[in-house]
Amino acid sequence: MDKLVAEFQPLGRRVKAAVGISVFQAARQAGVAISSDCGGRGTCGRCRVEVLSGQVSPPNRDELSVLEHNRASGRQRLACLTRLCGDVKIHIPNSSRAYDQRLQLQGRKRPPEGDNRYSVVNVELSCPSLTDQRSDVTRLFDALPPFECLNGWQLHPDFVRRLSKVARSSDWRLAVYLCDGAPVGVAPIGESPMGIAVDMGTTKIAGLLIDLESGKEISAAGMVNPQISYGEDVISRLNYAIQKENGGRILARLLINALNCLVKNLCDQGGVSADRIMEITLCGNTAMSHLLLRLPPEPLARAPYIAGFSTPLEMMAPELGLKSAPGARVSVLPCIGGFVGGDHVAMILACGLDRCSGSTLGVDIGTNTEIVLAKPGPNGGIFVLSCASGPAFEGAHIHDGMRAASGAIETFRITADGPIVGTVNGEPPVGLCGSGLVAAISELLRIGVIDERGHLKTTHQHIRSGPNGAAFVLVPEKSGGTGRDILLTQKDISAVQLAKGAIQAGIRTLLAKTATPADEVGDVYLAGAFGSYLNIDSALSIGLLPDLPKARFVRAGNAAVVGAALTLISRQERKRAAEIALRSRHIELATDAQFTRLLVRTMRFVPCVQGKIKKMDRG
Amino acid sequence: MDKLVAEFQPLGRRVKAAVGISVFQAARQAGVAISSDCGGRGTCGRCRVEVLSGQVSPPNRDELSVLEHNRASGRQRLACLTRLCGDVKIHIPNSSRAYDQRLQLQGRKRPPEGDNRYSVVNVELSCPSLTDQRSDVTRLFDALPPFECLNGWQLHPDFVRRLSKVARSSDWRLAVYLCDGAPVGVAPIGESPMGIAVDMGTTKIAGLLIDLESGKEISAAGMVNPQISYGEDVISRLNYAIQKENGGRILARLLINALNCLVKNLCDQGGVSADRIMEITLCGNTAMSHLLLRLPPEPLARAPYIAGFSTPLEMMAPELGLKSAPGARVSVLPCIGGFVGGDHVAMILACGLDRCSGSTLGVDIGTNTEIVLAKPGPNGGIFVLSCASGPAFEGAHIHDGMRAASGAIETFRITADGPIVGTVNGEPPVGLCGSGLVAAISELLRIGVIDERGHLKTTHQHIRSGPNGAAFVLVPEKSGGTGRDILLTQKDISAVQLAKGAIQAGIRTLLAKTATPADEVGDVYLAGAFGSYLNIDSALSIGLLPDLPKARFVRAGNAAVVGAALTLISRQERKRAAEIALRSRHIELATDAQFTRLLVRTMRFVPCVQGKIKKMDRG
Repeated sequence: MDKLVAEFQPLGRRVKAAVGISVFQAARQAGVAISSDCGGRGTCGRCRVEVLSGQVSPPNRDELSVLEHNRASGRQRLACLTRLCGDVKIHIPNSSRAYDQRLQLQGRKRPPEGDNRYSVVNVELSCPSLTDQRSDVTRLFDALPPFECLNGWQLHPDFVRRLSKVARSSDWRLAVYLCDGAPVGVAPIGESPMGIAVDMGTTKIAGLLIDLESGKEISAAGMVNPQISYGEDVISRLNYAIQKENGGRILARLLINALNCLVKNLCDQGGVSADRIMEITLCGNTAMSHLLLRLPPEPLARAPYIAGFSTPLEMMAPELGLKSAPGARVSVLPCIGGFVGGDHVAMILACGLDRCSGSTLGVDIGTNTEIVLAKPGPNGGIFVLSCASGPAFEGAHIHDGMRAASGAIETFRITADGPIVGTVNGEPPVGLCGSGLVAAISELLRIGVIDERGHLKTTHQHIRSGPNGAAFVLVPEKSGGTGRDILLTQKDISAVQLAKGAIQAGIRTLLAKTATPADEVGDVYLAGAFGSYLNIDSALSIGLLPDLPKARFVRAGNAAVVGAALTLISRQERKRAAEIALRSRHIELATDAQFTRLLVRTMRFVPCVQGKIKKMDRG
Repeated sequence: MDKLVAEFQPLGRRVKAAVGISVFQAARQAGVAISSDCGGRGTCGRCRVEVLSGQVSPPNRDELSVLEHNRASGRQRLACLTRLCGDVKIHIPNSSRAYDQRLQLQGRKRPPEGDNRYSVVNVELSCPSLTDQRSDVTRLFDALPPFECLNGWQLHPDFVRRLSKVARSSDWRLAVYLCDGAPVGVAPIGESPMGIAVDMGTTKIAGLLIDLESGKEISAAGMVNPQISYGEDVISRLNYAIQKENGGRILARLLINALNCLVKNLCDQGGVSADRIMEITLCGNTAMSHLLLRLPPEPLARAPYIAGFSTPLEMMAPELGLKSAPGARVSVLPCIGGFVGGDHVAMILACGLDRCSGSTLGVDIGTNTEIVLAKPGPNGGIFVLSCASGPAFEGAHIHDGMRAASGAIETFRITADGPIVGTVNGEPPVGLCGSGLVAAISELLRIGVIDERGHLKTTHQHIRSGPNGAAFVLVPEKSGGTGRDILLTQKDISAVQLAKGAIQAGIRTLLAKTATPADEVGDVYLAGAFGSYLNIDSALSIGLLPDLPKARFVRAGNAAVVGAALTLISRQERKRAAEIALRSRHIELATDAQFTRLLVRTMRFVPCVQGKIKKMDRG
């Protein structure tokens, strides 16, 4: 096979690649992750790159239609549809780089309930001799306070292997790790047991390194989920696993490699050796959990969308291929059902929604938005649903949309001097992330450039019209970092209407089904990165969130990873997580007439006035 | 590297091998196992082969001294010291073939105590739908009677994977395997769960396939432990693991491959698919258990001979690399200490020695002989020791010694017409196995050709004398299957004296240390292949066994594999096994003055008269 050299800027990565492969594939081989929502089918437009030099295949009609009229130059292309014909040099703009985005690692913390599962006992053992030939294990157990489960046949050979080695290298002075009172590991004295909590998101993976004895956080790290180059949404990935030979294996392997990489980063940051990691607790949405564990993807991907498990799972770390201490275990938090996964269980746990004293909402906005209503009392319970809100708030299918990477517009105001934009890291603006999108629409609603129905007033000075309709120029060509106008198009506004409509309809359906008046809702927890950076006033004004006093909104941050860490630390929290999954009632919207009816009405850009909700939902 | 062709007869196997490698190595490459006690150091003489044609290295002085004067021809050589110089044809006699030996697969059975651990519940589940989106696990659990440990975080992802697949391929009609009431596996209705019990001996591996629901034995299979070509005794193998780079890995890998082969044979014989194997229970001597689990071998191989564990161990089958059902577990029975391993625990359990109503002995004769005395009552207990009895009874270091393979002499009588021999499988005699050795010495003692001190009467007509002393011709050249005399040499007799002396001294030490008069001993259980075929009259007459009424001797057969099977079937038996290991008191003989004193006296060929034992041991 003929080889050529592809160079990727601004990173300067080079790779030898076969003639005829796509820019997207070559970039993947060079270790450069390019964004993609559609899994390389040329429909999402997320993988725009610029061909700086060299010979590539000409664009076909599909590509041209996605790229539209506003290409800065003929050299702008879609990486997935552009094939290499010779040595090339490619520029990947920030807006197309999958890794360069803000990661939400931290969340709102609460102290764990109950005692820590892990404790450490230091022991000094007598040396073996011909008159004291007790085995290493018996020698150790004789020095420990009595514990249960010895006849439970649960001691792992890895424990013995480690004990035999450490005892002899530490002169029989040992730190013994006890979990629920039973010995699970040994180490030289002074080394406490460590655990890792991970939230496996569709786009981002976040992890915390926890000292299991003290319960303290040692380090936090995050990374992009490398599965992203196989499609940005879960359905694309499930389909890849279903349809491609070895697809499931490839996706699982990618995720496991990423987890190992995360473990290494966390350990490096914390100055801790990986062989102190006694336990890893993973949570993720249903798709991530199923892909990781190689559970059959079909039942989840096709109606009626059935998850394999809704109880916690446990296995040994080497079974999954995770590097950690000998005898380390991996726990996976239970799914609730459909597309409500273990990350949502962890979020409910972290926010304490299972113990709330009044009706409480939790919202995690993403391509799928999960909504929970926790309600105390005899008719109460934990009610969850997920609605397909689309990737608009993640910047996908938005004309100048991008993730919250450097240069993404996140605030927007119109002043007497014209528009003022604020960007991630203060870089020159290159596109529009979710919070910027909400801010821009809110502001244009305020000044009347957009009306309630979402129509752009075409007479405004910043409106430009093109073959695909009107667009508002947020940043003119000369002020931005892209060499072209950054636009908010009529199509973008419609995408936001659909997204916020689905979320509002979801919230209303949940309230209606549980006979909960909106004003009965106390706190509203906003989880995830979007919820952390969203301007709540803007969100209220476009009707994305229920119209409640601003003080009731609580930014929970990455509540999933916090919840996973709680289950790592305390047995009681583990039990709570298992109970949350079993207690939660999943409401399926796919066949829900009320939701469909509401969806039509909730697309208007009006605040969700409480009275109005109640009236409309009764109709 | 130059290659040549080596052909091995009578199997007709051919292999391309490098010039300069030994016959032994070439045979291993051809998949032919040649016996070896010394791990290829040219000292044991077990690997005699005949060079039929072709060029090989000439014998050195060491080799000639091992081969001695009685080589049938100059073409008889030691496989480990003979190097290939060109294409060769080699004959491997039965007596040198490691695999062609009688395997003791069966043992004396008793019904297990307590209920079976496994049970099967057939369920018919409702199909999932948009109005019933319960996860597969919840759907199943809702249909089962309540069980504990759901919050114990112990459900394995493999369980879910299998459930999701089988449920959909069996139209939601399932057989659920419960272990101690909790679900551990699923299968199409009609398939019961299977388990495998294995005794990993130093030379032989024996396994039973058990229906875990009924507790019934489905099939039995055995094979030679392939580690044998790395040394026939455990110390050689432990040293190989200690000294050679990757030695431990190589030995573990060999054993695991053998176990997988055994699992396959058992399944093929039983007509059962391997993915029904829910559990595998392994027992073995301390060395085999440590080598399998890759526990550090040094502490066991060097004084004070410390085992890593004396509690049961458990791991997932894939962690060890064993093929079985998804979610299958492997248990390893606990060692007691020193060189008394899990096989001895299983033997004690199978023979019920932990519940005996009177003082009971158990003896498993091998290169290491393990002896147990179980004694009820307030001063009672389970007392165990192991003594190095040498490999004489396994046919090693005996002039014409061999394992109990076809053609091995196992019975011997002198009649008026001369000696009459009986051989394994009735083949022409080619050598002498352990039971034949005891029979021959016993018979020669009876007719006075050997005296109490073990001296051969050189005046007998069948005595032949050579440079290494006198020898009795058991089978003359013309009657045997080897083309030469089959001899019992003075050296052989001394080896037996050492072996039986050690065993007798071990038994006496055990009785003395526990203040047990010999006539108080009720039953004497003889475990293992040697104990199964040994002529008890002969053994008594040479003083190998304590001089008790013949009826008190019980042949237990492969009691280890039977004991392992009991722990597989019943929880109560598992508990008993764990208790046996913890309760048993190990007596170390390495520094025992009494044992050393006894050793000198017990070498005489006189029956262990009860009164004599008592008097002598008090001295």
